[in-house]
Amino acid sequence: MREGFFRAVSTAEFHDLLRTFAPLPGETAGLDAALGRVLAAPIVAAENLPAASRAAMDGYAVRAAEVFGATESNPGYLDLAMDIPIGVIPEQPLPPGHCARIVTGAFLPAGADAVVMVEYTEDLGAGAIEMRRPVAPGDNIMLAAEDAAIGQTVLAGGTVLRPQEIGLLAALGHTRVAVGKMPTVALLSTGDELVPAEATPRPGQIRDVNSHTLAAMLRQAGAAPTTFALVPDDLAGIQAALAEAAAGYDLTLLSGGSSVGARDFTLDALRNLGADILAHGVAISPGKPTILASLAGKPAIGLPGQVTSAQIVLLIFVLPLLRHLAGDPAAFDRAVRTFPAVLSRNVASKQGREDHVRVRLEDRPGQPPLAHPVLGKSGLLKTLLMADGLITIPADLEGLAGNTEVAVRPI
Amino acid sequence: MREGFFRAVSTAEFHDLLRTFAPLPGETAGLDAALGRVLAAPIVAAENLPAASRAAMDGYAVRAAEVFGATESNPGYLDLAMDIPIGVIPEQPLPPGHCARIVTGAFLPAGADAVVMVEYTEDLGAGAIEMRRPVAPGDNIMLAAEDAAIGQTVLAGGTVLRPQEIGLLAALGHTRVAVGKMPTVALLSTGDELVPAEATPRPGQIRDVNSHTLAAMLRQAGAAPTTFALVPDDLAGIQAALAEAAAGYDLTLLSGGSSVGARDFTLDALRNLGADILAHGVAISPGKPTILASLAGKPAIGLPGQVTSAQIVLLIFVLPLLRHLAGDPAAFDRAVRTFPAVLSRNVASKQGREDHVRVRLEDRPGQPPLAHPVLGKSGLLKTLLMADGLITIPADLEGLAGNTEVAVRPI
Repeated sequence: MREGFFRAVSTAEFHDLLRTFAPLPGETAGLDAALGRVLAAPIVAAENLPAASRAAMDGYAVRAAEVFGATESNPGYLDLAMDIPIGVIPEQPLPPGHCARIVTGAFLPAGADAVVMVEYTEDLGAGAIEMRRPVAPGDNIMLAAEDAAIGQTVLAGGTVLRPQEIGLLAALGHTRVAVGKMPTVALLSTGDELVPAEATPRPGQIRDVNSHTLAAMLRQAGAAPTTFALVPDDLAGIQAALAEAAAGYDLTLLSGGSSVGARDFTLDALRNLGADILAHGVAISPGKPTILASLAGKPAIGLPGQVTSAQIVLLIFVLPLLRHLAGDPAAFDRAVRTFPAVLSRNVASKQGREDHVRVRLEDRPGQPPLAHPVLGKSGLLKTLLMADGLITIPADLEGLAGNTEVAVRPI
Repeated sequence: MREGFFRAVSTAEFHDLLRTFAPLPGETAGLDAALGRVLAAPIVAAENLPAASRAAMDGYAVRAAEVFGATESNPGYLDLAMDIPIGVIPEQPLPPGHCARIVTGAFLPAGADAVVMVEYTEDLGAGAIEMRRPVAPGDNIMLAAEDAAIGQTVLAGGTVLRPQEIGLLAALGHTRVAVGKMPTVALLSTGDELVPAEATPRPGQIRDVNSHTLAAMLRQAGAAPTTFALVPDDLAGIQAALAEAAAGYDLTLLSGGSSVGARDFTLDALRNLGADILAHGVAISPGKPTILASLAGKPAIGLPGQVTSAQIVLLIFVLPLLRHLAGDPAAFDRAVRTFPAVLSRNVASKQGREDHVRVRLEDRPGQPPLAHPVLGKSGLLKTLLMADGLITIPADLEGLAGNTEVAVRPI
């Protein structure tokens, strides 16, 4: 691992280092809290969904064979056997030659295998119903067990729970589910020039921007970061804060210390605490001066001090790590969904370094948007404010030509 | 408005009806709570950011003109005037012929206009510093007021606050900001067949799926919906619940009542409460039986009872309405970011109706993913569970051919 000191590792190598941290043990969550979380165990249906066939339309439950060939000009006729209210299983089967009036969601009587929509029927009175359209078996009904059958694994372990999975869990009565624990995150900022955002800086001081920006990104990703008080930019201060963070939190992020001296403090503090330094430097721009350590067996990441660089490192490394720790088996492999745009001009890039370039999008009717590169110093907020997205220039390219189609990740 | 009863309105018309509801009055929020919200008033900088020029790299602050032409083979030499610590404004200007040692983030002394990176210098001892690279004025520094100048409007009213805007607000000391109020949402479910997800259904009953699915979607969008107890599926029950919801919440959503009879109860209850029915039916599929009313001047939406249909109506209408009420001036115009895929086979669609088709994506290396249409009854959860995204077939098309490039919205 010592080679980590001497060369910047690639994005893929950094991801591999992050993978060495084991996902956190699972916990039980209610349905509200389970949204966005990762299933820790498969869900097996203990009942059929639906329990029996249900109408998907208002109309008449029929035997499809008995309305075979019915048309507007040559309708079929059935006798009305019953009205089926919603919320009960009909006790009587449907007698041959009969139909049953039914509303959407109601359960079909035994014998019925389809529903004729009400708009293709006419109630002629005296219990006679005219059918003007044929149906095939299964038409306009939800079949018994079509959503889930007893014993079927309906959700695999590792599934990320979207609203529709929450719906399925509700349907099956799984209102408490085993999910991966969302990591707790300690967010530390260091820098002797920093004052809290609420304070009025004296000349030479600046307000702490990174804590707020990074906390917001973590919050968007579903984490609830704990922001520590500003850490004094010296070995003792950084070491004490790192020790406290690693003792109490699943993931420690230390922002700031972008100067060589401050980075040295971070490395020395980590070493003094017995941490294993896994990487010191990553071959991306911005974001190179990133430190990864295993501290008390937990990940600790020294982020670059420039806010723009720290944002990239969060997007590319920390957010996937959060999902990995939370139990997502595909956390580092999940394709980031991007949308296409056309680069407005050439962008140069250094070979051997993966470049993440901010772009401002100009929407164009009927064409993919134009992506204007937003270049500028990574210590400035301005470039981030102007940007709508990010494009990645792989390490093996020397840049991208204007008019190239690029894949944009929204930020 | 009465025509709303007789024809299904288009998506654009429905959006126009939603626009008639005024955005909610603003409120003040702390930075954490302001994330994702909409600025209610412009932010004007009361100070310069940075207050003075700052180093963007570790190295030596110089007058650029004094290292003009310096190279490895023909270096320049400057005398070291001072070490500039971080967190103070240097009191002395930089004397001619001198440089000042500086770390990233520290403020430059008066007279200096660039930083030579430390790796292109050598400390020769006795106060002599060798410079091996030239710099241009402004190199490796963040200029005074480059992020914000006193009096400048740095964020316009109506801006949606992302992490980077939160960072700028922190930098300027705006830790309490005026933002649009996030609407409170009452989520009502009706249906005599429904029992809460925690309950064991008797034969014929089913668990309430929609409340959980829709609440999860609303929560993802930043709202905190209040789920009412299940509403009895009769006129009195629906009317009482609607009255309570409209009195206490900014937006009322009533899910269920997908049968003709139940829809009639909803319409009758709204009329009895003096509501203005703005639309009854929208020309989309799924999602047609949607009701929009103005109840006590607030929007009330009757959602289709099928969970799939309700999800589409939430995506296309309710989520933009939330943002509109929360103060986003572009809520209905903001381009939904989609990504390209290739349709795996033909999909038919009825002209005059905007179709929203669920698709399952198959990733392919080096090519856009294949989008497999997931067809099936909209009362089933299965199609939603299998789907990764949605494609829209405009009302004027009769379908899309296989191999067509389509724009996929992730779900």
